[in-house]
Amino acid sequence: MRAEIMMRAAMIRGWIAVGLLAAAVAVGCARAPTPVAEPSVVAQADPLPSWNEGSSKVALIGFVAQVTTEGSPDFVPPPERIAVFDNDGTLWSEKPVPFQLLFALDQVRARASRHPEWTRKEPFASVLKGDMQGLARSGEKGVLAIVAATHAGMTTEEFQQSVTQWITTARHPQTGRLYTEMVYQPMLELLAYLRSKGFKTFIVSGGGVEFMRPWAERVYGIPPEQVIGSAGKLKLEERDGKPVLIKLADIDLVDDKEGKPVGIQSRIGRRPIVAFGNSDGDMQMLEWATAGEGARFALFVHHDDAAREFAYDREDKLQQFSKGWDEALEKGWTVVSMKDEWKTIYPEAQPAR
Amino acid sequence: MRAEIMMRAAMIRGWIAVGLLAAAVAVGCARAPTPVAEPSVVAQADPLPSWNEGSSKVALIGFVAQVTTEGSPDFVPPPERIAVFDNDGTLWSEKPVPFQLLFALDQVRARASRHPEWTRKEPFASVLKGDMQGLARSGEKGVLAIVAATHAGMTTEEFQQSVTQWITTARHPQTGRLYTEMVYQPMLELLAYLRSKGFKTFIVSGGGVEFMRPWAERVYGIPPEQVIGSAGKLKLEERDGKPVLIKLADIDLVDDKEGKPVGIQSRIGRRPIVAFGNSDGDMQMLEWATAGEGARFALFVHHDDAAREFAYDREDKLQQFSKGWDEALEKGWTVVSMKDEWKTIYPEAQPAR
Repeated sequence: MRAEIMMRAAMIRGWIAVGLLAAAVAVGCARAPTPVAEPSVVAQADPLPSWNEGSSKVALIGFVAQVTTEGSPDFVPPPERIAVFDNDGTLWSEKPVPFQLLFALDQVRARASRHPEWTRKEPFASVLKGDMQGLARSGEKGVLAIVAATHAGMTTEEFQQSVTQWITTARHPQTGRLYTEMVYQPMLELLAYLRSKGFKTFIVSGGGVEFMRPWAERVYGIPPEQVIGSAGKLKLEERDGKPVLIKLADIDLVDDKEGKPVGIQSRIGRRPIVAFGNSDGDMQMLEWATAGEGARFALFVHHDDAAREFAYDREDKLQQFSKGWDEALEKGWTVVSMKDEWKTIYPEAQPAR
Repeated sequence: MRAEIMMRAAMIRGWIAVGLLAAAVAVGCARAPTPVAEPSVVAQADPLPSWNEGSSKVALIGFVAQVTTEGSPDFVPPPERIAVFDNDGTLWSEKPVPFQLLFALDQVRARASRHPEWTRKEPFASVLKGDMQGLARSGEKGVLAIVAATHAGMTTEEFQQSVTQWITTARHPQTGRLYTEMVYQPMLELLAYLRSKGFKTFIVSGGGVEFMRPWAERVYGIPPEQVIGSAGKLKLEERDGKPVLIKLADIDLVDDKEGKPVGIQSRIGRRPIVAFGNSDGDMQMLEWATAGEGARFALFVHHDDAAREFAYDREDKLQQFSKGWDEALEKGWTVVSMKDEWKTIYPEAQPAR
């Protein structure tokens, strides 16, 4: 089991390990709620009211018209209108570190009373002391121990309850918002717009599938069966005369980079005609979508708005946007400037309780 | 690689190996087309015209009313109306052996000219000579070699083309029908009825997911993203500057028995409220569906009609229906007698060309 876990270490994407380093610096920040975002301008006829008039909006609406207008040479029948969205950094924020990592650290704290040995055992001791540098020193091995302790060894229903409890109460260390209030208003409008035009919207994310499903339907309107993500193996057991599924520490799918086309084919089985991402981890997904026959559309969200969100791209250690940017420029894919093209970043927030 | 394949041998379900034994006896049968089935009686108000009035039909319609009537204490909102169907023996016939095995044998024959060494190499030599006893003697190792040669080493698109070509032309050795004409008319009506009541219908089958998807939408109205089945691993590669997915011989999911709840959770992420099967391989799926809160429904199709289809249950070596039958009797699940409760088995067939 230990050997197995060590062997899987190489499969865990760098973002988690590197994330810890960033977390060490960033998580301790003062909790300063930012001002609530402006309510979006309501325009009856505008399907994307939070998008400024500009090339990205024109390209999006033009593509939708092209594939949904009957008689158009590029018409695509509704069942084939598959749209895939990355989650972290594409539908919601991902700084200072992917929110699932913050969930994992909170889970360590919440379970500490049941694990008195954790006060003397790394990486848990560092997490419990708030010593993020110590956590970072434990490296990938430490991260695996945290993932195993917080994402495995329980039933899928128990895990779902943990996620639901956390996502409805925990708040972001910098904005003071619920994490589900750090979704992007322009992308919510885009999801709804595409669905209104007969598209089926899917999440295809490096994040954990069981972490996203409990709230994706409420927040994005995307039902569990249309959420694809990284996943651990599951095992059927009987408890108290009822079948349960136990989450194991072994990896089933790493839904990132070259794993995204694999996740799309194994779960959807049909090539998307439109794909949305924000980092190099999404590049293979956009390539896969656009390599199909007929009209195709690919879009990257560019995080260039340090004032209203976060600014990072080519030099970022965690969510680099560099090769993908070059490819977008070369192939004419759409790159959205959050700063220039989005009127609003987040929806209106609920006041902190 | 050889060691890996051998290690996986234990994971391949017995039905394939045992299937070869049955195939050895049965495949050589004279090709005698059966008379075309009676067209189903059209009754405007009856959602299930091919079902005789009886306890199964009453139970089905009663359950649907119970969960879809607003104000009912058992009302289930549409997004949670998940219905799962086994395929082989539940939606279409599976005798003398699962049709995917007949596809594999046909593929060996079709590819033989590119593999001159097969005439001297088992199990291929036996297949090419039509020596089904010889094939059966090669056992599980032989079956794995055939699966590897016919289901792996090509792109997902190439495999899809093979399946489409076969499914639209190959005919059943006993009935002379296209295999897609050996689907069950009463189950087609049930699929349409459930969808008309807001259910989302899924296939959850031990058969291969890439084998079912190319025709499930046309035949059953079930789109690829709602087809779950056994699957091999996939690998992203570049060919001629375009990304392709290569089908590997390694197993990703064995979607049978305890694998069915795993397939349901990993792909759908929501517990079905109704499940349909026909053999012990479906038992865990029916248990999983009925173990949820609220109103649930489970149904087994019982193959007791030797005259119009095939009769097999407790003693069958390939698709045994014994433990599941006992459990159905104990728990009050519905067991449909094909002989007594179905007016028609198959839809009208197209004449053989």
